[in-house]
Amino acid sequence: MPAPTDPNCIFCKIIAGAIPCFKLWESPTVLSFLDIGPLSRGHALVIPKGHAVTLDQLTEEVAGDCGRAVRKVGAAVAKVLGAAGWNVLQNNGSIAGQVVPHVHFHIIPRKEGDGLGYRWNAGQIDKQDAAELVKAIVAEI
Amino acid sequence: MPAPTDPNCIFCKIIAGAIPCFKLWESPTVLSFLDIGPLSRGHALVIPKGHAVTLDQLTEEVAGDCGRAVRKVGAAVAKVLGAAGWNVLQNNGSIAGQVVPHVHFHIIPRKEGDGLGYRWNAGQIDKQDAAELVKAIVAEI
Repeated sequence: MPAPTDPNCIFCKIIAGAIPCFKLWESPTVLSFLDIGPLSRGHALVIPKGHAVTLDQLTEEVAGDCGRAVRKVGAAVAKVLGAAGWNVLQNNGSIAGQVVPHVHFHIIPRKEGDGLGYRWNAGQIDKQDAAELVKAIVAEI
Repeated sequence: MPAPTDPNCIFCKIIAGAIPCFKLWESPTVLSFLDIGPLSRGHALVIPKGHAVTLDQLTEEVAGDCGRAVRKVGAAVAKVLGAAGWNVLQNNGSIAGQVVPHVHFHIIPRKEGDGLGYRWNAGQIDKQDAAELVKAIVAEI
């Protein structure tokens, strides 16, 4: 069964070759290329070839393929850039910062003083609430 | 071959059962539990059971197992929380925000006005530089 395609999706057009990209790697199910609006030099994307908006819409198999690809491409990007560190970021939903509605993993090389990173406002866990959440989430998995 | 363990690593202690956790899911190679310093309600972690500091140190197989687990747990967390969106974040290196030196994927449920998210200062790609980067990265993959 061929992977689903959305004719209005810019990433589907890149996958189809209708729009060019700076391709880094591909497999039968995954494509990786440089982000044209980079947060830092070497900012790369890993996307599934089949159209899906959010991560939960992927099959387990393709989610696994993405995990392997992010490791493979991320390691190469970090090495070539000589990056001191790197973030992997995957946003689901516009409220979470997703702009293109086709699953994509960002690989973002980091260096001192780049001003990037996740806004980190950590709280403390409420143990009673956590125990209830665990029950509900475990039942859903 | 048993997975490597670091006796000084807090996540290895959780995996070994020496420190309790709010467990959500596990497989032979992966464990998922609630973050005790949550950025939002339902903030969960997915970690490989074998000790590795950064994603590039995982085997392809375990990286794939992590990808599958993040999809599985993330979908359940988002559903139970009724989250409008969610981020997956994985930090490699202290400069990238990594605090515990054992690979972990954050699953962060998002809602309107939560003040979370990645600081997004996108630039524009330099096409000549990008073409050179592609050559170097492709050679490294």
